[in-house]
Amino acid sequence: MNKIKLAIIGCGIITKEAHLPALKRLTDRMEVAAVCNRTASKAEDIAEELGLDHSAVWTDWKKMISELKDLDAVLIALPITMNYEVSRACCQAGLAVLCEKPAAMTAREAEETATFSTQFGVTYMTAENFHYDRGFLKAAELVKAGKIGNVHSMSWNVLSWMEVDNKYNKTEWRAHNEYPGGYVLDGGVHFVHALQMIGGPVESVFAHTASVDGRLGTMDTAMSLIRHKSGCVSSLNMGWRSASDDGALRIFGDKGSLIMGRGNVKELKPDGTEELHTFEEESSFYLQWSAFLDALEGKKEGLIPERMPADDVKTVLAMIESEKNGMAVTINS
Amino acid sequence: MNKIKLAIIGCGIITKEAHLPALKRLTDRMEVAAVCNRTASKAEDIAEELGLDHSAVWTDWKKMISELKDLDAVLIALPITMNYEVSRACCQAGLAVLCEKPAAMTAREAEETATFSTQFGVTYMTAENFHYDRGFLKAAELVKAGKIGNVHSMSWNVLSWMEVDNKYNKTEWRAHNEYPGGYVLDGGVHFVHALQMIGGPVESVFAHTASVDGRLGTMDTAMSLIRHKSGCVSSLNMGWRSASDDGALRIFGDKGSLIMGRGNVKELKPDGTEELHTFEEESSFYLQWSAFLDALEGKKEGLIPERMPADDVKTVLAMIESEKNGMAVTINS
Repeated sequence: MNKIKLAIIGCGIITKEAHLPALKRLTDRMEVAAVCNRTASKAEDIAEELGLDHSAVWTDWKKMISELKDLDAVLIALPITMNYEVSRACCQAGLAVLCEKPAAMTAREAEETATFSTQFGVTYMTAENFHYDRGFLKAAELVKAGKIGNVHSMSWNVLSWMEVDNKYNKTEWRAHNEYPGGYVLDGGVHFVHALQMIGGPVESVFAHTASVDGRLGTMDTAMSLIRHKSGCVSSLNMGWRSASDDGALRIFGDKGSLIMGRGNVKELKPDGTEELHTFEEESSFYLQWSAFLDALEGKKEGLIPERMPADDVKTVLAMIESEKNGMAVTINS
Repeated sequence: MNKIKLAIIGCGIITKEAHLPALKRLTDRMEVAAVCNRTASKAEDIAEELGLDHSAVWTDWKKMISELKDLDAVLIALPITMNYEVSRACCQAGLAVLCEKPAAMTAREAEETATFSTQFGVTYMTAENFHYDRGFLKAAELVKAGKIGNVHSMSWNVLSWMEVDNKYNKTEWRAHNEYPGGYVLDGGVHFVHALQMIGGPVESVFAHTASVDGRLGTMDTAMSLIRHKSGCVSSLNMGWRSASDDGALRIFGDKGSLIMGRGNVKELKPDGTEELHTFEEESSFYLQWSAFLDALEGKKEGLIPERMPADDVKTVLAMIESEKNGMAVTINS
């Protein structure tokens, strides 16, 4: 089998720091044939790091995908506002697409991304790396095995103090976001995804959202209660301007609890004893690429169910709607 | 000045384990003149512990307060369903009243307790000992001093695994509660009170409530988002059937955070450094009695503002209403 020919569209932080290290470990299965970035210098950096010559560097993604006839797949890692449009165009061009999260910035468009694979007869997947995080997978596995009985609630404070000159916030499209929800959408889809992996699909959400520091985009804080269809309720508090000493996801069942740690999931039993469930850490970006390449080779079982990343987006957008109307917002999926 | 003559109505766990040790340290200011309990043996135990003879033991509180003409004050520590009625009758009889929380079990009655002192010309106070907890007082003081800037949010998981044969749950009126909210009302008023001490009055609340184990009364779990009038939002998750490893109240400001510990409040600063604010621990029941006795001697500044315990009740009842209608419920106060 020939190696999969991949083009990278968008050469920002996430491409450089997360995708590239993963792709370098998968050169037996794929090759990066082209790199594209509006600002050429960033694409040139990536090309150089991959040992590609100047002819592999593009600044216009439309031109690139129309001229390169032998491409199999693209990685899309662009400003959030472009995800839907570029994903759709690439799928339409017959390319397999791995596109960074969030899949889209409206509920309707997010829903449509879930149909791209069938609509265009390609493999489209949102790059939700949390889906391949071995910690969440271990927790989901323990829950499924009935270790802590029926899961009635979860609690997760994902709080940090982001400096205004943080590398992410130096990205113009983040600091002056033209999509709803700012960091809450950008980061929130990850956390909702992990909660879905363990608690199942979301039924409704209530939230208060806020901007603590206007220099961190339009929104940097959201406190939410997510009700899953299973009846489980998740308390998810996100903040990029909240100094904290605790960020553990805690999963509460009627036979015990699970506390997420680094390299382990701690089970707390009703009798006060603990059991440590360990796992070997591995880059979720590497595992994500492996699953994506598997799919291109016909083994699609490892792909993220299409509904999930769309619902991640819809859930975060529902938080914003909830703040406006003071009601729980139902997620239709 | 003569010592204040006190009668105790209700000789259950909280009287025996929390009030009695405090009262024993205040014998220079008050004396327990009578003890009353429907089941005489419990009153006799308390009488014996206080060195009172059998004539001080009563089983009918109405008879006791009408026959003992020289009483100044009563401690009311009864099943929750009786708090309002007995408090009102004692106030009407001209007695000073310290009554265990929750002040009442309906919003209307809770509101009325806030008028007892003026209505009857006595001193009525809900025994909300959290008001005198030096940890919450220290946190409130640090917030007021501007240490962490504007407080935009708080987070508190008050979770524990209560065994069905726990001493509290062995109390018939708790295990088969005839008041709304079960443990959520019983314990929840404490936590809402502490949040009010730091974040100010409550504007609205949204919650999901649940019964994880039907043997723990009608309700043992509530996940809530409380919006304070200041704009601060508190995430308060309560559960009596949730094994957990963390119960710290965390207070997030736009200049840093406070994390409540034992004997200290840890300040987390944006630059990653910490400062420990220590305090000397003291029984909040002792401090509560001291403030109550001060008030009977004319120094009323230490009393709990009357609105607060009423709003504690109304906020928890609003959580239950919120679960029913899927909306945030406004607290009118």
